[in-house]
Amino acid sequence: MGKLLIVGTVAFDEIETPFGKTDKILGGAATFIGLSASQFDVASAIVSVVGDDLPQEYLDLLENKNIDISGIEVVKGGKTFYWKGKYHNDLNSRDTLATELNTLADFNPIVPENFKNAEIVMLGNLHPSIQMGVINQMSERPKLIILDTMNFWMDNALDELLEVIKKIDVLTINDEEARQLTNEYSLVKAAKEIQKMGPKYVVIKKGEHGALLFHKENVFFAPALPLEEVFDPTGAGDTFAGGFSGYLATTNNISFENLKKAVIHGSNLASFCVERFGTERMQDLKREDVSKRLHQFKMLTQFDIELK
Amino acid sequence: MGKLLIVGTVAFDEIETPFGKTDKILGGAATFIGLSASQFDVASAIVSVVGDDLPQEYLDLLENKNIDISGIEVVKGGKTFYWKGKYHNDLNSRDTLATELNTLADFNPIVPENFKNAEIVMLGNLHPSIQMGVINQMSERPKLIILDTMNFWMDNALDELLEVIKKIDVLTINDEEARQLTNEYSLVKAAKEIQKMGPKYVVIKKGEHGALLFHKENVFFAPALPLEEVFDPTGAGDTFAGGFSGYLATTNNISFENLKKAVIHGSNLASFCVERFGTERMQDLKREDVSKRLHQFKMLTQFDIELK
Repeated sequence: MGKLLIVGTVAFDEIETPFGKTDKILGGAATFIGLSASQFDVASAIVSVVGDDLPQEYLDLLENKNIDISGIEVVKGGKTFYWKGKYHNDLNSRDTLATELNTLADFNPIVPENFKNAEIVMLGNLHPSIQMGVINQMSERPKLIILDTMNFWMDNALDELLEVIKKIDVLTINDEEARQLTNEYSLVKAAKEIQKMGPKYVVIKKGEHGALLFHKENVFFAPALPLEEVFDPTGAGDTFAGGFSGYLATTNNISFENLKKAVIHGSNLASFCVERFGTERMQDLKREDVSKRLHQFKMLTQFDIELK
Repeated sequence: MGKLLIVGTVAFDEIETPFGKTDKILGGAATFIGLSASQFDVASAIVSVVGDDLPQEYLDLLENKNIDISGIEVVKGGKTFYWKGKYHNDLNSRDTLATELNTLADFNPIVPENFKNAEIVMLGNLHPSIQMGVINQMSERPKLIILDTMNFWMDNALDELLEVIKKIDVLTINDEEARQLTNEYSLVKAAKEIQKMGPKYVVIKKGEHGALLFHKENVFFAPALPLEEVFDPTGAGDTFAGGFSGYLATTNNISFENLKKAVIHGSNLASFCVERFGTERMQDLKREDVSKRLHQFKMLTQFDIELK
């Protein structure tokens, strides 16, 4: 069992989908990553910042999942990062109605002493200079650094993003963003270009169309589980990242074969996330339900053709 | 080895993609299905109609692939069905620039005597009353009737389409069309609704995002092979159908397990079709290349997670 260091937002989300709307509820990349990774036996810690307007029960919830929250700075009188969004009818696209950085604007991440030697580092979507700041605090080179990002940073902090991408092992990115970053329409070509930028592994997330893992000439694909209802896609990508990094931390094995399994575990966990609003489904998710659905994943993808 | 009866167009296509354009070349659903199915040891026959403007070399090409073409009616002085289309830059959408039904307008399909007992019938995309006409000529109920259709028939001949759908075993249809046919956005729900209409099996084709096979509570998924270049998507769906039906005919086994393999073979063959204009890649495709790529499919999708 390895240590997993998670960096990202702990936030308020306010969500509207065709099926309903929420008030301000618990959200944030690090929250989803942490909840998802807690499905494995890992020692994990979150580095983040919130205001003291965040209900204590949200922090308790994370701590009750055995997540070390000593790296979550609570700013007295500060306000927590807030995002409000509305999904379109097909749930594949959304409008951001509000983004308030609040305490995140001056976030100076501090890695807890006992996680400076974490084997796996999962850098959730944040300003690339914050992601770099975390890498620089590690006392030894982690076995695997995974970085998630989005088009916002390509548009607004491309130089810093390219600098931090040089330092990492796995980039997780969605299909449109991979195209934007590389100017290649073909995802196969885009993944090759990204590997030239630094990361040995590239995970391209295609939402309901699954995820691709690239490494040199190797490609592996995990579908998203076809669901009767997708209720709220918020956090699905982060839940994927949590399953991916959590599985790698618990197995402490970064071979390509094991990364393939990590992609499946990530996809499996993401399939739960979208069944309820926000973190609701992930909060009380039982390991036996996760195992059962893993069986469905095998049924969905495995076939028996003998090769000549 | 079973007999495979193929019904569909043999046509002229004129295609423009971002990579170039063609003159009038050989196309048509039955052509792609037949070429693809010829990768297996099957006795196949095409039922279709053309004008005598179709070069003899096109018919020779099919015959040289051991396809029985006695069911292709050549209308003296008639003109062959013609389609002209232009793909957009992402190759995911296209504009139809011309459609001339020509001899197809009065097509009265005649099934060759020695194929009236074919085990597998593959009804390519055509007017549903033509598809029904073929079913009615069979001397015994085929083991498996597969039907492909498109939104055009839902818009223009829905009653006839629903009648023929009642009589078949497998419907192959793309994702948007499945939604249109059922008014269900979720493909899982759409597949359930389609099963209520008659077919025991539903194949939903998602183009570059792969294909789903549904049967009762079972779902199987085959990705499209990620390619560096997709050159021309024309005929990919029919090539899939040809691999699917050809494999089922050669194995003469219609269990769900074998249908899964058929979906993989169909996806595998479709990955070649898109590499060149029209039928170019399929005309001289070697079985050893097909086998090699099947190996890539296994690498792409197979993983080894032990379930508890």
